[in-house]
Amino acid sequence: MTSEFDLIRQHFTRATTHTDLAVGDDGALLRVAPGMQLVVSTDMLVAGTHFLPDADPADIGWKTAAVNISDMAAMAAQPRWITLALALPAAEVDWVARFAEGFAACCAAFNVDWIGGDTTRGPLNLCATVFGEVPVGRAVLRSGGSAGDDIWVSGQPGLAALGLQALLGQRELAGEARTSCLAALLRPQPRVALGLALRSVATAMLDVSDGLLGDLQHILERSGCGAQLEEVALPLAPVLAACGDAQAARDALLRGGDDYELLFCTPSTQRDTLQALSDKLALPLSRIGCLVEGEGIVLCRQDGSREALAGRGYDHFGKPGGN
Amino acid sequence: MTSEFDLIRQHFTRATTHTDLAVGDDGALLRVAPGMQLVVSTDMLVAGTHFLPDADPADIGWKTAAVNISDMAAMAAQPRWITLALALPAAEVDWVARFAEGFAACCAAFNVDWIGGDTTRGPLNLCATVFGEVPVGRAVLRSGGSAGDDIWVSGQPGLAALGLQALLGQRELAGEARTSCLAALLRPQPRVALGLALRSVATAMLDVSDGLLGDLQHILERSGCGAQLEEVALPLAPVLAACGDAQAARDALLRGGDDYELLFCTPSTQRDTLQALSDKLALPLSRIGCLVEGEGIVLCRQDGSREALAGRGYDHFGKPGGN
Repeated sequence: MTSEFDLIRQHFTRATTHTDLAVGDDGALLRVAPGMQLVVSTDMLVAGTHFLPDADPADIGWKTAAVNISDMAAMAAQPRWITLALALPAAEVDWVARFAEGFAACCAAFNVDWIGGDTTRGPLNLCATVFGEVPVGRAVLRSGGSAGDDIWVSGQPGLAALGLQALLGQRELAGEARTSCLAALLRPQPRVALGLALRSVATAMLDVSDGLLGDLQHILERSGCGAQLEEVALPLAPVLAACGDAQAARDALLRGGDDYELLFCTPSTQRDTLQALSDKLALPLSRIGCLVEGEGIVLCRQDGSREALAGRGYDHFGKPGGN
Repeated sequence: MTSEFDLIRQHFTRATTHTDLAVGDDGALLRVAPGMQLVVSTDMLVAGTHFLPDADPADIGWKTAAVNISDMAAMAAQPRWITLALALPAAEVDWVARFAEGFAACCAAFNVDWIGGDTTRGPLNLCATVFGEVPVGRAVLRSGGSAGDDIWVSGQPGLAALGLQALLGQRELAGEARTSCLAALLRPQPRVALGLALRSVATAMLDVSDGLLGDLQHILERSGCGAQLEEVALPLAPVLAACGDAQAARDALLRGGDDYELLFCTPSTQRDTLQALSDKLALPLSRIGCLVEGEGIVLCRQDGSREALAGRGYDHFGKPGGN
């Protein structure tokens, strides 16, 4: 049987470009540039909750890195380093090799050095901790929004939720629709370039991991505001619109997690900037509403009616047995 | 049912003293002092492998922090910050409260800010990532030893292994012997003060988590040396000596893991320094042998005979089903 140390050496030791010491000692060594704050985030992924047990390990690897790197984007930070600790039920070399390949591919795509980690035997569990840099005081927090700010979201949230339904056999999807929804679910693209570009623009920001409404609620609580959303402005992806179930489409858009798009607020003076940024990044940016005095989320329909929306997002413990 | 966010807020949000932003956003913000390297280490703990499933959650919490902080000591770094990600099978508030208490107590004991983390539902898993500071280029690595260096170990390795045997009902232990062995196992004391004091003294260092011989082997491989140990110099704790089983005592001392003592090498000119340090810290420091040209570990007995010792340590995958 392959030993732990051999496993680590073979698959988890990758070249680094901006790290003083990576794998092989009691700790890694790195240098934070002068004038920079270090941004730290950690995310733990578990089979059945964050990915299906039979998923391609390369996809699991990509996602483990991506959801962590996404947190750096959400802080307007440059992701720089990442560690990975994992528990495995057995030393399945093929699984580890493919997992490591996907994890390393995502790190490489965002110029993140994989600097070390830990391996142990146990029920499958993946825990990455990511480190980014941001000039001191320039991180975009959840707390900086004010009434009057525009609310924006990147991309087309909801595709990942639809992809999950397809994987679970709850929805028929074929062709390009299936491809794009599965890609959103299995290979999320952290919006790093967008996050960095928003450093001087956004007043509040986070990444949508638990659903648009639930995550918006976090901004509202931290910023002490309410929100008014315009139904007509919500970026309903064609594949969602075509799914033939308007309620499911809206639920996917507003409550589906796992898209890792950025949700952010900006002063209304910045609309031209955002349009230019959308063109430059070739990424849809939708102005979906604005922050208002008070609390709660109200959806304004085209017919002028208004609906109060519950902002509760996905909660790993609040929904027993939930996905 | 208590929600995830409530759980986190209640138990995992602690005051910090040297962190710009801790829990509550997509990432924590901290500043590394000018001229310092950041040292990063992560350790994942799993029930059945790193602690018994029915252990006191406060002890599990302490140990989760301690084994991570110990890695900072082993690098001669000042531990400063820590994150904690955990998977829990259910939202057991009492368990979480006691766990958090133990984790926070260890952090407080070593002036480490607990800056955030992640919580999810899944088989019990605890993953901490710890950050320390060391002046650039001053970390003590595993690779700096040379033939002729003395080999030292702190404390009395083997107590934790005996404690585990007692907990598993494999060995009778009573009174103070039981107390000290269980304390070594359940409440390990990271040797932070020793690690810092060795910054200008030790040529190579690590913490003994997998057994003295196995961890010594890591130093030997990295430093390109062999080792000669003197049996008479090994710090056989009185409780080990009194256990009535010489082979078991030696195994505990040489191969028992989980003591988190420091194993380090120094030039032989430093013996007075080490003696003074031992007195100052009220911590036994034992010179157990020296690095030699070549490879492998040889034990020299009092009668002049020599025994080659296998340096293989605890390997989570190499020993299927092993604890």
